[in-house]
Amino acid sequence: MITAFASDNTAGASEEIMRAIADANKGYAVPYALDDFSNQSDEIFSRIFGDVTVCYTLSGTGANVVALKAMLRPWQGVICADVSHINTEEAGAPEVITGSKLLPVPSYDGKIKTEDIAAFLHDKDSFHRVSPRVVSITQSTEKGTLYSIGEIRKICSFAHENDLLVHMDGSRIANAVAALDCDIKAITKDAGVDVLSFGGSKNGLVFGEAVVFFNKALSRDYMTMRKQSLQLISKMRFVSAQFNEFFKNDLWLKNARHANEMAYYLAEKLQSNKALSVQKPCVNAVFVRMDRSLITKLSKEFYFYVTDSAVNEVRFMCSFQTTKEEADYLAERINTLTK
Amino acid sequence: MITAFASDNTAGASEEIMRAIADANKGYAVPYALDDFSNQSDEIFSRIFGDVTVCYTLSGTGANVVALKAMLRPWQGVICADVSHINTEEAGAPEVITGSKLLPVPSYDGKIKTEDIAAFLHDKDSFHRVSPRVVSITQSTEKGTLYSIGEIRKICSFAHENDLLVHMDGSRIANAVAALDCDIKAITKDAGVDVLSFGGSKNGLVFGEAVVFFNKALSRDYMTMRKQSLQLISKMRFVSAQFNEFFKNDLWLKNARHANEMAYYLAEKLQSNKALSVQKPCVNAVFVRMDRSLITKLSKEFYFYVTDSAVNEVRFMCSFQTTKEEADYLAERINTLTK
Amino acid sequence: MITAFASDNTAGASEEIMRAIADANKGYAVPYALDDFSNQSDEIFSRIFGDVTVCYTLSGTGANVVALKAMLRPWQGVICADVSHINTEEAGAPEVITGSKLLPVPSYDGKIKTEDIAAFLHDKDSFHRVSPRVVSITQSTEKGTLYSIGEIRKICSFAHENDLLVHMDGSRIANAVAALDCDIKAITKDAGVDVLSFGGSKNGLVFGEAVVFFNKALSRDYMTMRKQSLQLISKMRFVSAQFNEFFKNDLWLKNARHANEMAYYLAEKLQSNKALSVQKPCVNAVFVRMDRSLITKLSKEFYFYVTDSAVNEVRFMCSFQTTKEEADYLAERINTLTK
Amino acid sequence: MITAFASDNTAGASEEIMRAIADANKGYAVPYALDDFSNQSDEIFSRIFGDVTVCYTLSGTGANVVALKAMLRPWQGVICADVSHINTEEAGAPEVITGSKLLPVPSYDGKIKTEDIAAFLHDKDSFHRVSPRVVSITQSTEKGTLYSIGEIRKICSFAHENDLLVHMDGSRIANAVAALDCDIKAITKDAGVDVLSFGGSKNGLVFGEAVVFFNKALSRDYMTMRKQSLQLISKMRFVSAQFNEFFKNDLWLKNARHANEMAYYLAEKLQSNKALSVQKPCVNAVFVRMDRSLITKLSKEFYFYVTDSAVNEVRFMCSFQTTKEEADYLAERINTLTK
Repeated sequence: MITAFASDNTAGASEEIMRAIADANKGYAVPYALDDFSNQSDEIFSRIFGDVTVCYTLSGTGANVVALKAMLRPWQGVICADVSHINTEEAGAPEVITGSKLLPVPSYDGKIKTEDIAAFLHDKDSFHRVSPRVVSITQSTEKGTLYSIGEIRKICSFAHENDLLVHMDGSRIANAVAALDCDIKAITKDAGVDVLSFGGSKNGLVFGEAVVFFNKALSRDYMTMRKQSLQLISKMRFVSAQFNEFFKNDLWLKNARHANEMAYYLAEKLQSNKALSVQKPCVNAVFVRMDRSLITKLSKEFYFYVTDSAVNEVRFMCSFQTTKEEADYLAERINTLTK
Repeated sequence: MITAFASDNTAGASEEIMRAIADANKGYAVPYALDDFSNQSDEIFSRIFGDVTVCYTLSGTGANVVALKAMLRPWQGVICADVSHINTEEAGAPEVITGSKLLPVPSYDGKIKTEDIAAFLHDKDSFHRVSPRVVSITQSTEKGTLYSIGEIRKICSFAHENDLLVHMDGSRIANAVAALDCDIKAITKDAGVDVLSFGGSKNGLVFGEAVVFFNKALSRDYMTMRKQSLQLISKMRFVSAQFNEFFKNDLWLKNARHANEMAYYLAEKLQSNKALSVQKPCVNAVFVRMDRSLITKLSKEFYFYVTDSAVNEVRFMCSFQTTKEEADYLAERINTLTK
Repeated sequence: MITAFASDNTAGASEEIMRAIADANKGYAVPYALDDFSNQSDEIFSRIFGDVTVCYTLSGTGANVVALKAMLRPWQGVICADVSHINTEEAGAPEVITGSKLLPVPSYDGKIKTEDIAAFLHDKDSFHRVSPRVVSITQSTEKGTLYSIGEIRKICSFAHENDLLVHMDGSRIANAVAALDCDIKAITKDAGVDVLSFGGSKNGLVFGEAVVFFNKALSRDYMTMRKQSLQLISKMRFVSAQFNEFFKNDLWLKNARHANEMAYYLAEKLQSNKALSVQKPCVNAVFVRMDRSLITKLSKEFYFYVTDSAVNEVRFMCSFQTTKEEADYLAERINTLTK
Repeated sequence: MITAFASDNTAGASEEIMRAIADANKGYAVPYALDDFSNQSDEIFSRIFGDVTVCYTLSGTGANVVALKAMLRPWQGVICADVSHINTEEAGAPEVITGSKLLPVPSYDGKIKTEDIAAFLHDKDSFHRVSPRVVSITQSTEKGTLYSIGEIRKICSFAHENDLLVHMDGSRIANAVAALDCDIKAITKDAGVDVLSFGGSKNGLVFGEAVVFFNKALSRDYMTMRKQSLQLISKMRFVSAQFNEFFKNDLWLKNARHANEMAYYLAEKLQSNKALSVQKPCVNAVFVRMDRSLITKLSKEFYFYVTDSAVNEVRFMCSFQTTKEEADYLAERINTLTK
């Protein structure tokens, strides 16, 4: 069973990252993110984003929960897309750990609009309703789409005008930056985002994410919040050492660019097969509609997700580790099975 | 500043563990603990303990929370020592994530007795009170002491007779097994423990713990619980690969034995200094009382914890990485400072 | 400002209920629902429903929360209509107090179907997702509609076949029973409902609801759950005394029938006005579409809710206390304003 | 079985209160505490305390939970006496609904001291620990004792100097005011208390308490908090109407004074019996030590609590409803049984 295209997390870690971990294993270090590696990571994030607070966490769900916990009181809610990771793939962790309610809006492409937010504004005046406080957007989205800088700016302005905060789930922010070919600061802090979950696990790290607080007031008690949210291991140097390496020679961007390009390559390959309806990929996910019988056959050889069974849509993810040969082989097998 | 004796988590990871992590970074793997490494770990745990469910987690606090969450409804409570890690060092995570209340009993040596448990039994009849459901004991304890097999059996029998479950926080269970020179199954499953938090981080892993459910009925939904408790990373193979190595050639026991022996060695060294009152160590922690002025001086060179400021008691922890030279140096510096 | 039609909770309490409260104020009584009045209420519920456990609560939201808490572990979810009271009007109480997640399905008429439930069944196999465990339906619904007995039976069968439990929010169950002219047991227990929130506040009580556990296994710790959910006052005799009176001479049904009939009367009156589009009422709510300008004018004299601003739909509620004269006056004022 | 002395909540409600409830049942009223009765209550509280926000709740536990929820983020804790009602008699509601942890200090007389608070201050610097944020004191205490004004001032000053807030559980504040013969404002707001749970249920109301926010910034979202904490019924006029009557002709104080005086009377009666060791009552609780055999015999006729079985201490509570004849009869029965 080939698992290469199931998700960008079936890959391992970049070799550079593995070496960084090995190198970090020298002697003793102060535990709990107070070590030299963590200090160095903080400096790197500050060089990229300016004056920010960074909270390293263990998982993407963990990053989102710490971010939201910092932004919310338990009677406040989070406007998000119904297909967002926080709403569908985090086993209710945001609700149970922050005490807050998610306020999902229907979304076909994974994106939300200011109109969606506007529809909740009157709830602020009702004490029978959870008071909307945070807008959470995912960049790039769970549906493989991208917000333009303009769209992010518009959402952030609208949110702030209405006393709402903006969280960005950036578990694939690197793929977004690579695809938009822009400055990461431009589509996050400068666009008005208050708190960013910066992803690592899906882009070549062994594990590790970073909550970046642009709105530093929100980060006041982040260390206790992180501990309480089970996102602190004692030997945090092994997390921050990965981040230090990640930003060296732009490994994070190189990895993301490669994943995106493999998706573009795969999509092009698949487009030549008339039995398939291939969505042009924005980042590293290729969404393809095909006959149900083909899905069944393909499932015997490849591990992948059916993302919309109503229309027989499946998803092939590429990662930093994907090779042209792997993409060729997938296309070839599909061609054979559809002959 | 020398951090070697601050805790057993200032050490790095065993070289064997580092190699195992590097080796696990081959190709693709099914994510979320459904990979081959995790299957192998499950087998190893079954060889040791018989028919059990094992849930790998990221941190010790995470292991305790998942364990307790599986054992409790939100109106039930946990009888534990007031000095227990779950009560004092987990930032309220057990309460906020399980919804339950801890019911601490005063304890000078970190141990609790059946009398302490008995005192809560009448609360089961009052709907105004949290209903005691779990007894949580730590082996070895936060105070560096040990429960004997007989003591554990007695607590478990008493608990079960009164419809209570027993959780063991075994973040240093390896040190306990090494010190008692017993079979780990004998002091856990066979003694009546229902769920064990089996520690790795403090004993030479990069990170990673395992919740071992002897009472398998409690583990029914452990995978969703783990995800919801933020203890799941996608590349769980990097956790289980460590456990696989941990049990090869009894590395886990070797590491623990070394840490204990270094503590015994250090204690003996320090005992010769009449300015110190040294508690005979059971495992890898050496508790020493000394003049406040000596604490102040020593703090300038060494990073360590004052565990009881009322009696000027400090703690020196040894780890798998501690060397005789490091112990000698600490003793020598104290001798010089007390001359 | 006339508040009569804003909701069925702008009314006071039935005179019989007020007398019952006054009568209950004799001498001392065992507190916390262990008094004679409560025992008597329990007997009455048993006469109606057979062998059940009844938990008296203070508010409808409280009843729903206690019911759901008894049915759920924190990683399990509740399939419900998006317009359901638990999802929109309880300020997130179900989530924050049970720890669980609501899984809303789009519903125009306030009802859900087995297809809606079926769509969530695959989530039971994913540990990334909250595991659906309860189906919550409201009878009569928030949209003034009714489930037929057949529909309830179908939902309950489907739920049970799929290892789900059924909760019925019956804050207006009396209006449903009156409208369907059926036995309450037939549309609840006998139809397969596991737990019922039986409403009192909207039907002539000062305050007070009852959680009726048909599935008695779920009620095991209800007394502690109630206390923890802040639904216990010391002098619970004042709650159960109301219930005792409520069932005497079928006051609960008489009140509900009157409220329904007033709604039918009002609807008929309004139907003659061509400026209005009146939905035929099933129970005690009259939904009417009218010009926005009329809404504005009417709002200056009457307190009522706009239930769908997109289509200018408003709601007039009738209660046990509504009189024909009040309905006449409302119709007359609308007629005058639309002339 | 005589229940008069079991607690001050076995009594019913004052006749004046019953009339006020009956009077409130006139016509329609805006629901959810936006009615005229509630406005009037707000004015009364303002006359007593100056500029405050008042949140009416249903139960004492409810009042405490709303108060604490307003004061805390989930990683902050509450320093309180181990015997406090919030720690022992609220079934874990404060923890599960606020998400916070209680930090109990051993207390024999129900009171805490600035030294107890000081012992937790260093936890503010540790992200492994819940950060103390609130000091909760009970006036009069669960042990029947009283804080002097000076003691309250001292605690409040110390708390504020250390960036802590002060909550007072005043479920028996009326008894305290009556006993100290002081102005209620002097021992609450003027002494530095930030939020008061003002009790009604134990002092002659049917039900109902009030959270009084002296620190108004904390009350910002109190209406949503109250709803989410299940402390809102629709017909809140029946709560505030009671408060309006409560303050008319100082009924609240008259009731409390009577209860206290009955306790003093009972204590004096009992003191003449040499078989008893009677603690001089401060307020309306009489603590008495007696032979275990006497407790057993007495239990067959009277319903009362053994408050400390180690020393055979029992508690007799007096209420606004207690009569001299009832006290005489209790004393007489004890005398007969000890002959």
